[in-house]
Amino acid sequence: MLQTRRLLLTAILVFTATITSQAQQPKLERIEPAFWWTGMQEPLLQLIIHGDKIAEREVSLSYPGVTLQEVHKVENPNYLFVDINITSSAVPGTFPIKLKLKGQKDLVYTYELKKRNEGIKAQGVNSSDLVYLIMPDRFANGDKNNDVIKGMQETSLNRDSMYKRHGGDIQGIIDHLGYLQDMGVTALWMTPLVTNDQPSASYHGYAATENYHIDPRFGSNELYKVLADSLHKRGMKLIQDLVHNHIGSQHWTMKDLPMKNWVHQWPAFTRSSFRAAPLMDPYAAPSDRKIMTDGWFDLHMPDMDQTNPYVRRYFTQSHIWWIEYAGVDAFRLDTYPYNDADFMSEWGKAIKAAYPGFTFFGEVWVHSGPEQVFFTQGNTVNRGFDTQLAGTTDFQSLWAISAALNEKPGWDDGVVKLYTALIQDYQYQDPMRNVVFLDNHDLSRFYSVVQENKNKYKAALAWLLTTRGIPQLYYGAEIGMKNFSAPDGLVREDFKGGWTGDAENKFTAAGRTADENELFNYVSTLANYRKQHPVLQSGKLMQYVPQDNVYTYFRYNTETTVMIVLNPNEKEMAVSPARYTERVTGFTQAKDVVTGKTWPLSDSLRIPAQTTQVMELLR
Amino acid sequence: MLQTRRLLLTAILVFTATITSQAQQPKLERIEPAFWWTGMQEPLLQLIIHGDKIAEREVSLSYPGVTLQEVHKVENPNYLFVDINITSSAVPGTFPIKLKLKGQKDLVYTYELKKRNEGIKAQGVNSSDLVYLIMPDRFANGDKNNDVIKGMQETSLNRDSMYKRHGGDIQGIIDHLGYLQDMGVTALWMTPLVTNDQPSASYHGYAATENYHIDPRFGSNELYKVLADSLHKRGMKLIQDLVHNHIGSQHWTMKDLPMKNWVHQWPAFTRSSFRAAPLMDPYAAPSDRKIMTDGWFDLHMPDMDQTNPYVRRYFTQSHIWWIEYAGVDAFRLDTYPYNDADFMSEWGKAIKAAYPGFTFFGEVWVHSGPEQVFFTQGNTVNRGFDTQLAGTTDFQSLWAISAALNEKPGWDDGVVKLYTALIQDYQYQDPMRNVVFLDNHDLSRFYSVVQENKNKYKAALAWLLTTRGIPQLYYGAEIGMKNFSAPDGLVREDFKGGWTGDAENKFTAAGRTADENELFNYVSTLANYRKQHPVLQSGKLMQYVPQDNVYTYFRYNTETTVMIVLNPNEKEMAVSPARYTERVTGFTQAKDVVTGKTWPLSDSLRIPAQTTQVMELLR
Repeated sequence: MLQTRRLLLTAILVFTATITSQAQQPKLERIEPAFWWTGMQEPLLQLIIHGDKIAEREVSLSYPGVTLQEVHKVENPNYLFVDINITSSAVPGTFPIKLKLKGQKDLVYTYELKKRNEGIKAQGVNSSDLVYLIMPDRFANGDKNNDVIKGMQETSLNRDSMYKRHGGDIQGIIDHLGYLQDMGVTALWMTPLVTNDQPSASYHGYAATENYHIDPRFGSNELYKVLADSLHKRGMKLIQDLVHNHIGSQHWTMKDLPMKNWVHQWPAFTRSSFRAAPLMDPYAAPSDRKIMTDGWFDLHMPDMDQTNPYVRRYFTQSHIWWIEYAGVDAFRLDTYPYNDADFMSEWGKAIKAAYPGFTFFGEVWVHSGPEQVFFTQGNTVNRGFDTQLAGTTDFQSLWAISAALNEKPGWDDGVVKLYTALIQDYQYQDPMRNVVFLDNHDLSRFYSVVQENKNKYKAALAWLLTTRGIPQLYYGAEIGMKNFSAPDGLVREDFKGGWTGDAENKFTAAGRTADENELFNYVSTLANYRKQHPVLQSGKLMQYVPQDNVYTYFRYNTETTVMIVLNPNEKEMAVSPARYTERVTGFTQAKDVVTGKTWPLSDSLRIPAQTTQVMELLR
Repeated sequence: MLQTRRLLLTAILVFTATITSQAQQPKLERIEPAFWWTGMQEPLLQLIIHGDKIAEREVSLSYPGVTLQEVHKVENPNYLFVDINITSSAVPGTFPIKLKLKGQKDLVYTYELKKRNEGIKAQGVNSSDLVYLIMPDRFANGDKNNDVIKGMQETSLNRDSMYKRHGGDIQGIIDHLGYLQDMGVTALWMTPLVTNDQPSASYHGYAATENYHIDPRFGSNELYKVLADSLHKRGMKLIQDLVHNHIGSQHWTMKDLPMKNWVHQWPAFTRSSFRAAPLMDPYAAPSDRKIMTDGWFDLHMPDMDQTNPYVRRYFTQSHIWWIEYAGVDAFRLDTYPYNDADFMSEWGKAIKAAYPGFTFFGEVWVHSGPEQVFFTQGNTVNRGFDTQLAGTTDFQSLWAISAALNEKPGWDDGVVKLYTALIQDYQYQDPMRNVVFLDNHDLSRFYSVVQENKNKYKAALAWLLTTRGIPQLYYGAEIGMKNFSAPDGLVREDFKGGWTGDAENKFTAAGRTADENELFNYVSTLANYRKQHPVLQSGKLMQYVPQDNVYTYFRYNTETTVMIVLNPNEKEMAVSPARYTERVTGFTQAKDVVTGKTWPLSDSLRIPAQTTQVMELLR
């Protein structure tokens, strides 16, 4: 398959030449998806066929249980969109798809219908998981042979430049799964791994030039499947990062657009406003809505026209393909609000129909609760349709934890903001499906946000691992990697030890400083406690109105009660358990789950300055 | 009727003495309501009868169409709650209600069923109105004879003390209706006028000691009706301020509680947390909810137990009584979130059933959109019942206009906050029913909030009179009265000219300074433009994402389009009309509705620093 991919890549390059020099000798340049499966939930498959003047040809195929349903000719005669119907009686095998033109040799593609992937897949992620986000180019370089790939637009590797490729790859991730699993991580989300053959800054993955191929600098489709299998063997899960909204300017379809409305066309380059507010604003100007969703995310990121049914099918099928092929468990949906809402709903329905256990969450980078909840499924807003989005990246609790640890206390300020962020949960169908986090590849690293104050940072980490939702760590958070996100390259530094010859190796206790070990051990202890105790995964939450800028909440189920007290103040605070009658009745002691120290509940608890104390209550 | 009231007052005082010295000679001390009407929507009327050992007696009455339905004895034998059924066949008239005890003389009360008030009443307020809020003690003293009332607990008047009575009254308000009407005001909301016979700080009205009586220091029930009639004759409306949540510690029922759960009882004085958040918080501790709703608002303000059906009826009937008696048009509901939600829903239903055109809005003093919308009717939250609350005092837009004029601009700061506050309107059934304001009797006066910067203040006033909702001015706002609300007495200063002998008279142009006249004329011009142009009352709103900290919105209907540009920056800003295609197409000129100046729409508009420019578009 690696070979197949390389061949296809070559084919594209040849094709690019073809349209200028050899138009008189038509070829079948590309069929996507390159193969499919029998027994899928949806019998209709739409093939995109690309080749010079391919639309002049007549399509035919013959295979038991498979029928040619419809052939769509579009604006560009170099494309055909071919609907085939794969009925439940079709069995795995291959058959020729012929494209005939009178007086010319047939073009033939041998199509394969595989047996479905019977391995673990589509498990979904939920609040029992701890997600770890990796930028693959920056985590670990497991295969030096793929650092630079001949023929691709970026021709060098430069670890000293924050926007160049650094050589990290899938093999590097596979090599460190033990490290992650030991830490308590249960699911990996990597920034997109599909080919980004852009001339510059191609390392981040959000400017896809291929939909069906892992970037060869990260590995191969096969290696991605090896990663999935390795994760599944460890009881871990794979989250794939999808970008529906845009592609890279060098995407193969951009070089020969199927039709004008494949992407949104503007008289001159028009950037999105990055303002989601007009989408829900009852007073919004239509022009403000249009520029948000149809404006381009960046000069190098054309905006898909998701009202185009061919675009819809092309994307949706590729996503189903990845679940079935590699065994993906969940998706993270990039730039969610920028998408066509109707498409995202239809897409969500299709994914869930195909894989009922599958889950996905959307990046909704907004600055108020009402803006965030608007996009979610079954929220309290009647949008006339179900968005199908179970959860979002919970930016509201992120703004709040930052305020809690950095702001002066006040009636509505300081730790009260953290409390208030959660009361807004009444507007969600199930807020437990939101992903909580302290930082990611676009944001300042939280250790810097709290002035590299180790205590504050640990207080935040403890909150992250005990509040409601699906916690997500960003690579290096466990050792206090730092920097602010302007420019964003600064928060995408290499994980030291991921490259042979690195002077330091943070994957080992010996390679970490005392401070790094302290943070690592803290994260690891809490993450493993969380992993072993369903109460922190799916237990109920009860929170109390903060007093004296101290925030107390409980996670509890029939087995276990955990009391969490967040004291962001610069002094120790006394907290009387008596106030929390609902949750402490019947218990006599509180045991710090990190240190093992116990205190009687008959006395006030002394919570040290800038500390989140996590205590299991004992009878 | 004034005499009747005085008699009743005397009766109370006698009664207070009675329980200590003359318990052996029972009297019928009080029946409430003192009278009722035939032909009301609800046939059941519950009389509260108070008198020493009154429960020993047997109640009887005989009147065509009226039946005695049920007599309720309660914990305290000095009370009877008597349900009578007034059928549609009953005609106006009087009849004796007899209370008999073997071997004793009958106690008899002559009950009157009046003919219903056929005058104007229950009109409701809506976004066509401009509400003016008055603290009656501090606006104008029209009747010096009622400044101090013998026998009441506060025995003096002292205009130099912010917590003493100053002597303002209903007659003072009646005397200045012309001033208000000329300014463009269409509805008056006064802080509560019912008797507050408390020993101190009784001027504000929120510690009622009577439910059916206007405080004699403000006037009388009859004079209140004169005020209503005077307003109605001018085409203006009367909004009554109601407090469901609490009463004054000297309320007549507090001196001889009908039952223990008439008010919420606590082992020791327990103040409300003033935190509405637990009410909607899905993770709230029951104790946090209880302290919010059942804690006392203040040491001198016992918290009603609104789960008590006698409390419910007593309050609801008194409110209906005021509508019918005086011709009230709308209610403002004090401390709305502190009430029992189920009661407020039941209450709302009862009021609307009795007076379909009647409206009411609730004071919801909270600090986020989700906290505010939670209390409203038909919002997007499934609370399992309809709150019946059409609108709230819109604190969210208040925080936002303050931020717009005082904060540094930023992606989410400055004028963007004003824009964002309104996008949250998607969560309301009808946000046009919210009451927008810059200040009130509890808040710092907005002129001080904007550092007494006249331009900023005018910018805020123009926003207030052109945004969506029901605008509300606080007395003195039109002349730039100032001060911060700590302590609150400072924002409750006398309106100069309201007292005979005042050195200055701000009711007249001659008495106002140049600055005051500038503000007054600005408010008056805009308010009257608003009054004459339905587009600013009920026209649609379209707002655009702010750019360069400039906020542009339109109010429009089929007749008129008004363009409003708020530039809070410290420099003039150029705004190109071309961006607002949806609203400016077809128009050629913009005419400032205050100055009359016009500009062509073909050029950029130059908006002066710290200005809200309100422009009618011309074809």
